[in-house]
Amino acid sequence: MENSDQKRSSTLRIIPLGGLEQIGMNITAFEYDDSIIVVDCGLAFPENDMLGIDLVIPDVTYLKDNIKKVKGFIITHGHEDHIGALPYILKDINVPVYATRLTMGIIENKLTEHEMMNVTRRKEVTFGQSINLGQFRIEFIRTNHSIVDAAALAIYSPAGIVVHTGDFKVDYTPVFGDSIDLQRFAEIGKKGVLALMCDSTNAEREGFTPSEKTVGKNLIDLFEEHADTRIIIATFASNVDRVQQIINTAYRFNRKVVVEGRSMVSIIDTARKLERLNVPDNTLIDIDELKNYPSERTVVITTGSQGESMAALSRMAEGSHRKIHIGPDDTVIFSSHPIPGNEKAVTNVINELLKKGADVIFQDVHVSGHACQEEIKLIYSLVKPKYAIPVHGEYKHLKAQAKLAEELGISKENIFILRSGEILELTENTAETVGKVHVGAIMVDGLGVGDVGSVVLRDRQRLADDGIIIVALSLDKSSSYLMGGPDIVSRGFVYVKEADDLMEEASNVVLEAVEDCLQRGVKDWNKIRSQIRDSLGGYVWKMTNRRPMILPIITEVSE
Amino acid sequence: MENSDQKRSSTLRIIPLGGLEQIGMNITAFEYDDSIIVVDCGLAFPENDMLGIDLVIPDVTYLKDNIKKVKGFIITHGHEDHIGALPYILKDINVPVYATRLTMGIIENKLTEHEMMNVTRRKEVTFGQSINLGQFRIEFIRTNHSIVDAAALAIYSPAGIVVHTGDFKVDYTPVFGDSIDLQRFAEIGKKGVLALMCDSTNAEREGFTPSEKTVGKNLIDLFEEHADTRIIIATFASNVDRVQQIINTAYRFNRKVVVEGRSMVSIIDTARKLERLNVPDNTLIDIDELKNYPSERTVVITTGSQGESMAALSRMAEGSHRKIHIGPDDTVIFSSHPIPGNEKAVTNVINELLKKGADVIFQDVHVSGHACQEEIKLIYSLVKPKYAIPVHGEYKHLKAQAKLAEELGISKENIFILRSGEILELTENTAETVGKVHVGAIMVDGLGVGDVGSVVLRDRQRLADDGIIIVALSLDKSSSYLMGGPDIVSRGFVYVKEADDLMEEASNVVLEAVEDCLQRGVKDWNKIRSQIRDSLGGYVWKMTNRRPMILPIITEVSE
Repeated sequence: MENSDQKRSSTLRIIPLGGLEQIGMNITAFEYDDSIIVVDCGLAFPENDMLGIDLVIPDVTYLKDNIKKVKGFIITHGHEDHIGALPYILKDINVPVYATRLTMGIIENKLTEHEMMNVTRRKEVTFGQSINLGQFRIEFIRTNHSIVDAAALAIYSPAGIVVHTGDFKVDYTPVFGDSIDLQRFAEIGKKGVLALMCDSTNAEREGFTPSEKTVGKNLIDLFEEHADTRIIIATFASNVDRVQQIINTAYRFNRKVVVEGRSMVSIIDTARKLERLNVPDNTLIDIDELKNYPSERTVVITTGSQGESMAALSRMAEGSHRKIHIGPDDTVIFSSHPIPGNEKAVTNVINELLKKGADVIFQDVHVSGHACQEEIKLIYSLVKPKYAIPVHGEYKHLKAQAKLAEELGISKENIFILRSGEILELTENTAETVGKVHVGAIMVDGLGVGDVGSVVLRDRQRLADDGIIIVALSLDKSSSYLMGGPDIVSRGFVYVKEADDLMEEASNVVLEAVEDCLQRGVKDWNKIRSQIRDSLGGYVWKMTNRRPMILPIITEVSE
Repeated sequence: MENSDQKRSSTLRIIPLGGLEQIGMNITAFEYDDSIIVVDCGLAFPENDMLGIDLVIPDVTYLKDNIKKVKGFIITHGHEDHIGALPYILKDINVPVYATRLTMGIIENKLTEHEMMNVTRRKEVTFGQSINLGQFRIEFIRTNHSIVDAAALAIYSPAGIVVHTGDFKVDYTPVFGDSIDLQRFAEIGKKGVLALMCDSTNAEREGFTPSEKTVGKNLIDLFEEHADTRIIIATFASNVDRVQQIINTAYRFNRKVVVEGRSMVSIIDTARKLERLNVPDNTLIDIDELKNYPSERTVVITTGSQGESMAALSRMAEGSHRKIHIGPDDTVIFSSHPIPGNEKAVTNVINELLKKGADVIFQDVHVSGHACQEEIKLIYSLVKPKYAIPVHGEYKHLKAQAKLAEELGISKENIFILRSGEILELTENTAETVGKVHVGAIMVDGLGVGDVGSVVLRDRQRLADDGIIIVALSLDKSSSYLMGGPDIVSRGFVYVKEADDLMEEASNVVLEAVEDCLQRGVKDWNKIRSQIRDSLGGYVWKMTNRRPMILPIITEVSE
């Protein structure tokens, strides 16, 4: 499918290796002649049908096949869907990683966990700085997002400039640092931009995303209203600005702050060290010190805003948290929105908290980190790209941005909704999709990377639905005599202690099947197994309308 | 826990047997002396952790224990969460069923499926009519809801009147029949109402739920805008009024209508037969006739508005529907909102439809069937109950209605948020919870009712997460010699063809464990099994960080 490199030597190729067929797993290759740079390297969380899977990473066969060209990873910001696959991918593609300060701090936490700090080259980049990688120059441009130090990229290639927004919003009054560098977007736009790759997450939403600071105002109101109770606030660990505002509000109301949840502790630690979070002295206390203060003088910042079953807030809600017990003396604030798919889990946590008597607040204490329609239009109007490539979103979001781009005067044939693996080839004056590279999602389960595939998942689904019945029996070497069994064991099928008759009759069915085979002189174990499966499967379906996996195991008796 | 009947002979007892700990499974017993009536008999859909379960029904041990008192089931309307458990429960509690026309029609469809028409006594009731059952008189009052013939109940007992709203909204301009009978609510309120049990579903939402007719107006606009394409509309099969409006709009725009999806066909059939749906002649056509009409002259009404994987719309979206193929010539309208928990599935279907080029509309084509805050306040103000018992909703919804009731002047101690099983005892002047009866959720899996419990579910979860490894071996009678095996088979654990080394080493680990036992003269098979589990489990965890179920099966060789 691919065109040879020589034939098309003076073209820029943009190849998304993930992120366009699903939420998460953002990774895009930019290729020109002998140079490839890779923007982001994220993971995806497993879909509902990926039973038992921990996370999903992109298949980077294309990079492996072109390993000599690959110059580095450019990371836009420190969220899992942009950095999470790095420790796995760097094992095969060991090239330098470029990122801004907090982003690099979070990456380094990951590398430390994976014991990869010594083998990974890293370069911290500041906004405005450019780095040269082969045929490319990459400039980091400050943006705003729900994490500090988020960057857009201007990617300079001989074919022209591509602007990649990363995940962004326009926040004129950010909590930390400066507002998005709109002037620089304009300057680059003035030079002439070949293509714009813009965040589509909120492209369906009209208007402007409110400033992060609006949350701070609401927090102050809530602290005033709930002056008599302990306040517990759940939010995303990585939303350092949100944490900053909670700490500021706690300080203002003279409350001590406890940080709870492993990821929350880790990010706050990193952000403080890198001076991205400013905590006044004597504000943080240890969880064990909570009892030394009256409730109304304390705040707990916790993980679990998405209803994750093992997170601190969920444990508090179900009463299994060892140190924090929820009661009428608590106000619990969800400073977050449920990510699609988590709505039910979040609601369950809210109900449990309410049952324990807590006051629960889950509205108006969150703003998005992604640009709405007016902000997207603003960026298009500053950058004025020749080609539009909506990125970061489900198909419906990409489609919504494409519609916006068209409204802004970009002609339909200059707008490309790419699929993962598609090669978009650009020259100064042309753009076309020219084929596909191999892409895919690799499942990580425990220590195993890619050793669980569709066969294993299909088995897990079947086991999950109806369980398994195992039939064990022993035959002699000549396969003429039943030497032991058949023994029947089931798991996940039916509560056996109350299904004596069913299991006894199942035994009879199996015994009959085996004896029938032996009498007919069947020596082929596959045939014997198959007859067991058919007979027992038929009987079980008739009696229960279930289709458990049926697994006959024949052991040869060796004596 | 229960008080003896004699001691409290002149009290009314309200006992919710389900519906307050979860969405669905609505069923409430009303008891006075020797009489029990049961309002509704619904099912619940399985929670995410109920792997392989089809549906959940209430445990009615309390009714079985008091079977002689039970006079009948009073059904408020024809939704699954109010009628779905009837065929199961009637097998044990065979008493008459009372319901309005369409409700009874849908119940009868169920009874026919379960071959129970001949053994079930049924009585169709009209609005305004009362039925006498033991100590109770029950009056059916017309309300509005997302299904025709929904009823509220006035339950007259010697202790006083209880008004139960069922699921309701206030629709001044309903599509079929009359508006909710507010005058009757007022009249009964004037007589003096002991307690109000009111729908809480939308108690968190301000304002009024719009009339179903507003959807009709939007449909006309959409039909005008999309005059050039086929129109496919997904909605709830049971929303007969919605279907009526779609058919009306199709007729107005001179389009033929195809009905697709088993439940949609069945309900439309029933509703037409019972004169609850009016279809103009020559409007409905068979799906096979679609090809005889230009696209812009056709409408398809289909199931699948919740992204259900097997429903017609999902099959169209993924391209596996045999008769309807989606393309740029289609406008797909979701006339529904995703039920919490279904958001992701719905979004997936939308994305697939968009990828196929269809125009997809999923906003402003639906209104709720439940009362918002102003409607709840209206009912309270007409009925003016002494006691408030919020029903139908998650805890947070019940809590929200309790807050409304308080705002309306009902004192806190007169508001009861009950849990399933709690007994609320009422006299003319008092109300208190006096204990609990046994309640529970019984899981239905295939033909099995209640034969899957927590043990089986735990096993299914484990099998789903990490699969199973089975170790089969044969021992002689004296348990001294290994006669066959150990053979190792795994399912859902790892793709074995690519894990040769792992599985081979696993065999060695098991063999070592077995030989160690035999050498030490261990005869107890439980000990041998346990040593296999420990050794193999430890090895597998070390190598993979997974914990598959490990199931050693020892077969005795009999010769």
